[in-house]
Amino acid sequence: MIIKILTTGGTIDKIYFDRKNEFQVGAPLIGEVLNEANVTLDYEVIQLLRKDSLDMTDADRHLIYETILSDPGRHFVVTHGTDTMLVTATVLKKIFDKVIVLTGAMQPAKFRQTDAVFNIAAAITAVQLLSPGVYIAMNGRIFDPSKTRKNIEQNRFEPIE
Amino acid sequence: MIIKILTTGGTIDKIYFDRKNEFQVGAPLIGEVLNEANVTLDYEVIQLLRKDSLDMTDADRHLIYETILSDPGRHFVVTHGTDTMLVTATVLKKIFDKVIVLTGAMQPAKFRQTDAVFNIAAAITAVQLLSPGVYIAMNGRIFDPSKTRKNIEQNRFEPIE
Amino acid sequence: MIIKILTTGGTIDKIYFDRKNEFQVGAPLIGEVLNEANVTLDYEVIQLLRKDSLDMTDADRHLIYETILSDPGRHFVVTHGTDTMLVTATVLKKIFDKVIVLTGAMQPAKFRQTDAVFNIAAAITAVQLLSPGVYIAMNGRIFDPSKTRKNIEQNRFEPIE
Amino acid sequence: MIIKILTTGGTIDKIYFDRKNEFQVGAPLIGEVLNEANVTLDYEVIQLLRKDSLDMTDADRHLIYETILSDPGRHFVVTHGTDTMLVTATVLKKIFDKVIVLTGAMQPAKFRQTDAVFNIAAAITAVQLLSPGVYIAMNGRIFDPSKTRKNIEQNRFEPIE
Repeated sequence: MIIKILTTGGTIDKIYFDRKNEFQVGAPLIGEVLNEANVTLDYEVIQLLRKDSLDMTDADRHLIYETILSDPGRHFVVTHGTDTMLVTATVLKKIFDKVIVLTGAMQPAKFRQTDAVFNIAAAITAVQLLSPGVYIAMNGRIFDPSKTRKNIEQNRFEPIE
Repeated sequence: MIIKILTTGGTIDKIYFDRKNEFQVGAPLIGEVLNEANVTLDYEVIQLLRKDSLDMTDADRHLIYETILSDPGRHFVVTHGTDTMLVTATVLKKIFDKVIVLTGAMQPAKFRQTDAVFNIAAAITAVQLLSPGVYIAMNGRIFDPSKTRKNIEQNRFEPIE
Repeated sequence: MIIKILTTGGTIDKIYFDRKNEFQVGAPLIGEVLNEANVTLDYEVIQLLRKDSLDMTDADRHLIYETILSDPGRHFVVTHGTDTMLVTATVLKKIFDKVIVLTGAMQPAKFRQTDAVFNIAAAITAVQLLSPGVYIAMNGRIFDPSKTRKNIEQNRFEPIE
Repeated sequence: MIIKILTTGGTIDKIYFDRKNEFQVGAPLIGEVLNEANVTLDYEVIQLLRKDSLDMTDADRHLIYETILSDPGRHFVVTHGTDTMLVTATVLKKIFDKVIVLTGAMQPAKFRQTDAVFNIAAAITAVQLLSPGVYIAMNGRIFDPSKTRKNIEQNRFEPIE
């Protein structure tokens, strides 16, 4: 099994550019996370976009969709900003024969305290064990995107009752 | 679903006691890891042992076995030293109706660079998705303990071919 | 000796607010840094401002000046954004009988990789050893602000030749 | 000014060897610490010993002494285990025309929470500002070794009243 990892940006990859005095989405950090954990899986990181998910367009989502659809692989992890992760998940729902797990982070991977490593590990594990479909790995749980919302107040994903 | 987390010690919980000038297995750190990741699962941490796994006795393994067997729960994560993780897994194999995932770390959770967070996340995710049985979550993969070995040279778990 | 620590904001205290999808200057982190280092000095942290130094006004600088001038203490560390640290240092130059060391960071203290801890330690050490005057502690060195510039390209402070 | 950094081992450089299931003094980490802080000083790291300071012999201390004495440099930082740092300082007291600052750590530099970075920064700063003599930089303070003790209970250095 080879896992294809599509990176699209989001908080998980935010770094600080002192020269510009601002935070921006940087190069994907998931490779470093997997190295540090001594992961021995076969995987490939494909840097697709570098955007805050609030800035993502329909064209961006179509690009993610087409990339997965045309790839011969069966197992996909997509790192994504949390604000519109559910929107992208809905677009990807049309793909029925691949396992697709989206994840992201509330605190950047570069931070000393972050949920990024945990979430990446959850997504990498889930994509190996689940049957085809689209899922979200956040807050230690695996969510069905059609029954999930981001609770902005509590800053977490939760099931829609 | 409630996940019962049994901690037994091992490298994952090693801390440094300067007063004694030595490293020892400290209090379990998995609660901190789950908090930092904003995990919203129901879980309970049960501190069972605080041992290097090379020091584990048959009585220790029997204690782990009995604790799981007599617990009404169905989903168990066991944090454990890596050196004899496979031995303990073999003992637990007799329990056929619960999902049991063992994990540990090659570098202590207290280190700046560690596989502990990743491995804990992998175990927590796997225990929710797998059918009853005993599994090992290490190096980004889920292993069947009866077909796995620890490669001491490479410092990793790998399938027996 | 008691060291008065005035915090004014800057990159050193930047944190990420996922709810607002942005980084902002948060509460001062220097207390945490000093605790982690088991510092046994007498010190007091006075949170004066919480600003990017590019947003600092003359009134802000006057507040810093007045606070130090009217304080009975003799030793002051000021945490400050790097972009206008030299401007504030020039204002403080009028105080001739106190030791004042300004410091900041190019990467936030919350980051896993940061210059914040090093710079704070340098400032805390320098303020104990220097004679009255205004100094900048950055990049491992102690600078005279009147002979220093921030090299934006190289992202560091350096002496004016 | 060039700062000569002599590393002798101690807790500051302890790393974990999973293969051997033990912690040992590893290669000196001070270079990494200085890089991360973007230090622009001229410095040279000389790896002299790799020992717990409890294992240091008179010959080891003589080696440190001779190395400093015969070196043309004037500014020396010595990283050292804390248990016998004061003993080594006493030996070095015979050198009267160089600035020598000893430092170490109660928690290894590799730990997520450590006093190592702070202490290194304090020593690097102090060596630039002090007059010739032998000093200890620990707990945010600069100590005269002849009037200092390590308080084992409190795990810190403190002045002898």
